[in-house]
Amino acid sequence: MAGKLVRKKGKKAGSAPGTLVFSGASPDAEAHWQLLQYNLDSIEQLNLSSLQQLPPAKPDSVRWLNLCGLPGIAPIEQLGQVFSLHPLVLEDMLNTDHRPKVEAHPDYLFVVFKMLRFHPDSREIRAEQISLVLMEQTVISLQETPGNDFDGVVQRLLAGRRLRGFGADYLAYALLDAVVDHYFILLEQCGDHIEQLENELMTAPTTAVLAKIHHFKREMLLLRKVVWPLRELLSSLLRDENPLIKPETRIFLRDVYDHCVHIIDTMETLRDVLSGLLDLYLTSVSNRTNEVMKVLTMMASIFIPLTFIAGIYGMNFEVMPELGWQYGYALILGLMACIGGGLLWYFRRRGWW
Amino acid sequence: MAGKLVRKKGKKAGSAPGTLVFSGASPDAEAHWQLLQYNLDSIEQLNLSSLQQLPPAKPDSVRWLNLCGLPGIAPIEQLGQVFSLHPLVLEDMLNTDHRPKVEAHPDYLFVVFKMLRFHPDSREIRAEQISLVLMEQTVISLQETPGNDFDGVVQRLLAGRRLRGFGADYLAYALLDAVVDHYFILLEQCGDHIEQLENELMTAPTTAVLAKIHHFKREMLLLRKVVWPLRELLSSLLRDENPLIKPETRIFLRDVYDHCVHIIDTMETLRDVLSGLLDLYLTSVSNRTNEVMKVLTMMASIFIPLTFIAGIYGMNFEVMPELGWQYGYALILGLMACIGGGLLWYFRRRGWW
Amino acid sequence: MAGKLVRKKGKKAGSAPGTLVFSGASPDAEAHWQLLQYNLDSIEQLNLSSLQQLPPAKPDSVRWLNLCGLPGIAPIEQLGQVFSLHPLVLEDMLNTDHRPKVEAHPDYLFVVFKMLRFHPDSREIRAEQISLVLMEQTVISLQETPGNDFDGVVQRLLAGRRLRGFGADYLAYALLDAVVDHYFILLEQCGDHIEQLENELMTAPTTAVLAKIHHFKREMLLLRKVVWPLRELLSSLLRDENPLIKPETRIFLRDVYDHCVHIIDTMETLRDVLSGLLDLYLTSVSNRTNEVMKVLTMMASIFIPLTFIAGIYGMNFEVMPELGWQYGYALILGLMACIGGGLLWYFRRRGWW
Amino acid sequence: MAGKLVRKKGKKAGSAPGTLVFSGASPDAEAHWQLLQYNLDSIEQLNLSSLQQLPPAKPDSVRWLNLCGLPGIAPIEQLGQVFSLHPLVLEDMLNTDHRPKVEAHPDYLFVVFKMLRFHPDSREIRAEQISLVLMEQTVISLQETPGNDFDGVVQRLLAGRRLRGFGADYLAYALLDAVVDHYFILLEQCGDHIEQLENELMTAPTTAVLAKIHHFKREMLLLRKVVWPLRELLSSLLRDENPLIKPETRIFLRDVYDHCVHIIDTMETLRDVLSGLLDLYLTSVSNRTNEVMKVLTMMASIFIPLTFIAGIYGMNFEVMPELGWQYGYALILGLMACIGGGLLWYFRRRGWW
Amino acid sequence: MAGKLVRKKGKKAGSAPGTLVFSGASPDAEAHWQLLQYNLDSIEQLNLSSLQQLPPAKPDSVRWLNLCGLPGIAPIEQLGQVFSLHPLVLEDMLNTDHRPKVEAHPDYLFVVFKMLRFHPDSREIRAEQISLVLMEQTVISLQETPGNDFDGVVQRLLAGRRLRGFGADYLAYALLDAVVDHYFILLEQCGDHIEQLENELMTAPTTAVLAKIHHFKREMLLLRKVVWPLRELLSSLLRDENPLIKPETRIFLRDVYDHCVHIIDTMETLRDVLSGLLDLYLTSVSNRTNEVMKVLTMMASIFIPLTFIAGIYGMNFEVMPELGWQYGYALILGLMACIGGGLLWYFRRRGWW
Repeated sequence: MAGKLVRKKGKKAGSAPGTLVFSGASPDAEAHWQLLQYNLDSIEQLNLSSLQQLPPAKPDSVRWLNLCGLPGIAPIEQLGQVFSLHPLVLEDMLNTDHRPKVEAHPDYLFVVFKMLRFHPDSREIRAEQISLVLMEQTVISLQETPGNDFDGVVQRLLAGRRLRGFGADYLAYALLDAVVDHYFILLEQCGDHIEQLENELMTAPTTAVLAKIHHFKREMLLLRKVVWPLRELLSSLLRDENPLIKPETRIFLRDVYDHCVHIIDTMETLRDVLSGLLDLYLTSVSNRTNEVMKVLTMMASIFIPLTFIAGIYGMNFEVMPELGWQYGYALILGLMACIGGGLLWYFRRRGWW
Repeated sequence: MAGKLVRKKGKKAGSAPGTLVFSGASPDAEAHWQLLQYNLDSIEQLNLSSLQQLPPAKPDSVRWLNLCGLPGIAPIEQLGQVFSLHPLVLEDMLNTDHRPKVEAHPDYLFVVFKMLRFHPDSREIRAEQISLVLMEQTVISLQETPGNDFDGVVQRLLAGRRLRGFGADYLAYALLDAVVDHYFILLEQCGDHIEQLENELMTAPTTAVLAKIHHFKREMLLLRKVVWPLRELLSSLLRDENPLIKPETRIFLRDVYDHCVHIIDTMETLRDVLSGLLDLYLTSVSNRTNEVMKVLTMMASIFIPLTFIAGIYGMNFEVMPELGWQYGYALILGLMACIGGGLLWYFRRRGWW
Repeated sequence: MAGKLVRKKGKKAGSAPGTLVFSGASPDAEAHWQLLQYNLDSIEQLNLSSLQQLPPAKPDSVRWLNLCGLPGIAPIEQLGQVFSLHPLVLEDMLNTDHRPKVEAHPDYLFVVFKMLRFHPDSREIRAEQISLVLMEQTVISLQETPGNDFDGVVQRLLAGRRLRGFGADYLAYALLDAVVDHYFILLEQCGDHIEQLENELMTAPTTAVLAKIHHFKREMLLLRKVVWPLRELLSSLLRDENPLIKPETRIFLRDVYDHCVHIIDTMETLRDVLSGLLDLYLTSVSNRTNEVMKVLTMMASIFIPLTFIAGIYGMNFEVMPELGWQYGYALILGLMACIGGGLLWYFRRRGWW
Repeated sequence: MAGKLVRKKGKKAGSAPGTLVFSGASPDAEAHWQLLQYNLDSIEQLNLSSLQQLPPAKPDSVRWLNLCGLPGIAPIEQLGQVFSLHPLVLEDMLNTDHRPKVEAHPDYLFVVFKMLRFHPDSREIRAEQISLVLMEQTVISLQETPGNDFDGVVQRLLAGRRLRGFGADYLAYALLDAVVDHYFILLEQCGDHIEQLENELMTAPTTAVLAKIHHFKREMLLLRKVVWPLRELLSSLLRDENPLIKPETRIFLRDVYDHCVHIIDTMETLRDVLSGLLDLYLTSVSNRTNEVMKVLTMMASIFIPLTFIAGIYGMNFEVMPELGWQYGYALILGLMACIGGGLLWYFRRRGWW
Repeated sequence: MAGKLVRKKGKKAGSAPGTLVFSGASPDAEAHWQLLQYNLDSIEQLNLSSLQQLPPAKPDSVRWLNLCGLPGIAPIEQLGQVFSLHPLVLEDMLNTDHRPKVEAHPDYLFVVFKMLRFHPDSREIRAEQISLVLMEQTVISLQETPGNDFDGVVQRLLAGRRLRGFGADYLAYALLDAVVDHYFILLEQCGDHIEQLENELMTAPTTAVLAKIHHFKREMLLLRKVVWPLRELLSSLLRDENPLIKPETRIFLRDVYDHCVHIIDTMETLRDVLSGLLDLYLTSVSNRTNEVMKVLTMMASIFIPLTFIAGIYGMNFEVMPELGWQYGYALILGLMACIGGGLLWYFRRRGWW
């Protein structure tokens, strides 16, 4: 779990803003550019090993340039030159520990958000940064690690004309929507695990359950750091009326926004449920301690006085008249039975068993 | 309780927005359309097996088309074609896990909210989604499961001319009002159960009470997810001054809004009471542990020293002068009584019993 | 305490809005109308058994129509006809479980708020609903139960000309002020009880104290449901600049508003103090358990080893050389004293007593 | 501590608003008026026993009328007549339990706030109400009890020309600033006590520490009731642009506002620290209970089985072959040592000591 | 840790506002002025021992005057005279316990914020105040203690022309950015320590861990007092559109703002994690107490009844028939084994081991 709470910033403190620093583990050798250029009538798909191979833009066509995996500093600098991006935008693309945000530049919108995946083995949520640049006719997307997050969108573009009839803003929406849809799957998986925890807690509350509750509380904290800013991001996209986003796309963005609010509601509910589980655990531990105490108290309270009586008649005084009585032994055994029975009755009446 | 925390989304992540996917268990074979067409003077009621039987709209009449149960994708697509509804609206109608919301489209308002029912046997609150489309002269309502939620409204329409004198917006209000009125009943039922819990906790705090408190806390979380967005929905209906809602209906909407705020107040009070009960339970467990400990401590503290003394005179040393004394036994018994009485007096003074 | 958490709604769910339903226990036979008609120069007081006896309004006079106790549906319907009140207003007058609110109608303001009384015997706060209609020259007030809440205002009207020099809006303010002043008395009484609780907790923390803390926490929850909406109500009266309220009255309303905020501050402080008391109680229970444990542990730790030693020399082995020693008994007693003293010294050093 | 949670309101509920009621313990016989009349060139100081001695205002001079201690109703009524103050203002001056607030009247600003003093002996914070009326050329200040709160300001006025060059609004600011500066001293004193508590808690957590934490939490609640409204007050003074406050004074008010926000930050930090201390205390009590339990468990677990073995060979059966063995006693002693040592090793391995 | 919760205010309460009081420990003898004067083409660096050596400003050049360490009152007064600063600004420069804030004066912006450093030995966060005055062509910065916080910026200025091409506002931004970058390093260090704590808690929860959790919670409180106001400060810089800050610099300020919000998110996550650790600790203490209790209860419950039986047959009654039986001893041993085994089986079934 090391290094997860606070991710290392790539940028060295004190270095110049806009200085490109690669914050990933190592440049991704397999990183490559995917280009999709389409309009209502035609679509072509290209794999580019470098941006120098980028064909010129066609009028009336939408271009989608997708980079899977971060290839290092040089290709990003080239991207900045080709599309005239602000140095801070390039810096943010390379720094993969960013808060989701949207920045309106004169000619383009820059959006940063997170893809989330739940790893069932380690029960951990892992976040991958996605950067998006939306221009008049072009969408550029960068994924931190190579993945198939956008395969669904690619297939829909290739499959039919429906999605191709909309502009670049709708494509950007479709990518956002694909990511937010993944959040629902994630929450379902977390929800299933939390319900399982609840059942375990009800039947056999072990300390392993406690560690799991703590683990999920932490995962929820990290999830929260990703989803709340996304809501802000979408709300500002809806509110700011950027001309890059056409009015007919706005209603779809509103739909993603509603999904995002729904996700936040569900997430907060899960957090509350987890807090409730912790309370329940703590209370059930107190309860069990109480039960254990009752067993001990009953056993000790019944047998300690009886042992004392037996101890008295085990004393070796020369003058102990009871020892010589014919029915002394029987009497003492009877007395002990009475005392034991009386104490049992007393505990019973107090509702201890 | 499985699957309740997070409901499965019908829509497959990555599929196109506006793709209709049926999220219910299975299409409802008994689902059918009810049509009520009325004005101040006349009212007619029809059961349609398909929308193709839909008679043409009459001027000066209000049409209410009610669908009980979700019949599958095809009828909803037909509905979209007949009334020119946006694909996202149709998608939301079929996806029954939606946050209550209102969407203003150019020609109609689309409202999603929840009917809530409290099942006394399982002590669970179940939510059923209701979708409402309000047009100039038409109201379309869709209920997730066939039910009699709107029977009261139907009967009032059939019974007298009062309700028929208002327009479609008033009908939509009447449907909302019927649902919100149900929430009051629900809260009353929850309130009764919680008071019963409180009494149980005061008289006999068992672990079953704890499980019930936890259960109701969870139900309240789910209730909250339904009622807070409804308040937003109503507030936005009141604020946005949509021309579909006439000024004279606005005062009635304001009344539903007030009811909704009242429900939220009551719900938050119940939540606070439940939290208080949990604290009370935890404290009373600690208290009982303390009581149990006192009993144990008194029994052990009194009899362990006495047993020790008895043990001393049970030793078999050859030279133990006290054993030969005439009143040795009596003296030791007296000493034991003094020690026991002294300890009892000490515990009494410390207020242990 | 039954039925207190959530009050039953009189209105049957699904019935038409504006349908008058009597929600009280039973119509109040003694309910009657009090009329005060006054201007700077004269004042007349009348008891009316029915609104049909209502004399016509005089120009330049203020009319105050006060109804003590709810007489049933018919008189309220009559009131609605005489003063042309909206059906929803009449419904709210009869439904005595309403959230405090203000409604601006074209010709009048409708205000609902609560009179609170603290019953020292049951230590319960009881709320009574008061409805107020403020018109140009007329104030109508309805009290849920007959009471003397407004006697002070009546006496001031009868006594001197000061209050009579102001209009109907000032009268409405005076009634609100009388109710808010009662809240201060209520909080003083609660504060006294809570301080008493605090003292009890410091000196003798019994479980009865715990039940009382819980009880007051619940009372504070109910109080909160009444006072927060009143603040909103007053704030909206101040903000909305209704022409029925003259500028010179506004400063007095501002004063009531300040009092209301002061009450909220005090109430929240009491709530925080109560939470603090619960924490204190829980901690003191843990503390006492710890004290009890120490006593047990010291007694047991000292005497159990000693008893063991005594047990050894109570064994009946034929060959036990120590038993035959001249000073064996004395040696063993000395050893026991050393062990006991050593343990005592050890516990002392750990600060256990 | 009696009577502190909720202070008695002087005004009888139901009495007319604006009725002057004296809420102090008893009129202050030593109360007297101090008048300072100054401009850049001259300053004169007068003690007045009654307002009838008030000299006429000079043009181009600032008048500061300071009343130390509340002399009863009559002088306040006189003050109201001389300066044409609103009856509600006079009522608020006499009622010393007021929430800090500012009221803008046409010709003057009325400000109520609190002087706070920390009494080190009782560790209590005591609040004294200060009322301030700011007019064009005049400042009137009323202190609940005679004190030297404003001595610093008086001395600066007498000492040099700097302060005398500003108008009445700057004088009002200087008085506010003097009071807010006192809050810093108060917080320092509280902070010192809380750090001392923290040290006590770390070294020797007694129940006295618990009572002190509770006490300071309560003091912080009362402090909060005074400081938060003061922030609102200052914020509204800055925002409302009253002509009585000149632009060049505004920057000084902004400075007091910043101090007030700083005080709130510090106060909330102290509250959080106190909450942390309570948690720490509770946890350390649990910890110590755990330690005590371990001692008991080790002692009992080791010696109870050994005593049982000794008990077996203390039985008086006629046929007990081991009793006759030559090395029976030694064997049993060895067995006991093994069992005891084994248990010790077991507890050691579990980390109990 | 003494004196840390609330720092002493230098200014004596009641003294005149704008009076310069030195709040540091003692004037810093090594304090000196650094001057950097640069434009795109040239840069010169000077160390001044006094402001009298200050060379005149050149047109088209940016001047950066940096003071490391506070030299006492006189140099600050001189600074005020040279640059016509408001007395309150000078007072704030000398008072090193200030809340981060920005003040817009007609000719300059005055900004106060904090440099934070984490001292790994004491695990403490120490704050150092930095004051910044931004004028048209000049930036003045004051650091509480001599340090190398701005060395990175100095080196970048000396090294290349990039930074020198921007104006004074960009320089001010660069200084703010250097400080905020340090916060990331600080949070990383705290995060590492907290994760280490988490591991310790999971493996060996000692009381030292508890003290460390408490310590970090306190450090986070202090961190919060510094970072939240910084966010306000940056937000107000962005919102207020001061002409001293050029539009092209605004996008960089927006970037610092985003970093600051990111820092707040991370800080709140760390706070939540710490709270979770405390809960975990408390629960694990309860858990261990429960475990200890089980061991005690099992040992005592098994051996106390057996010891009682042994005690019975250790009694010295003359008539005890069992004692004479041939197999009495064996029978009793068998009975004891049965009882012990039965109890073990019972505890096993209850899941105690």
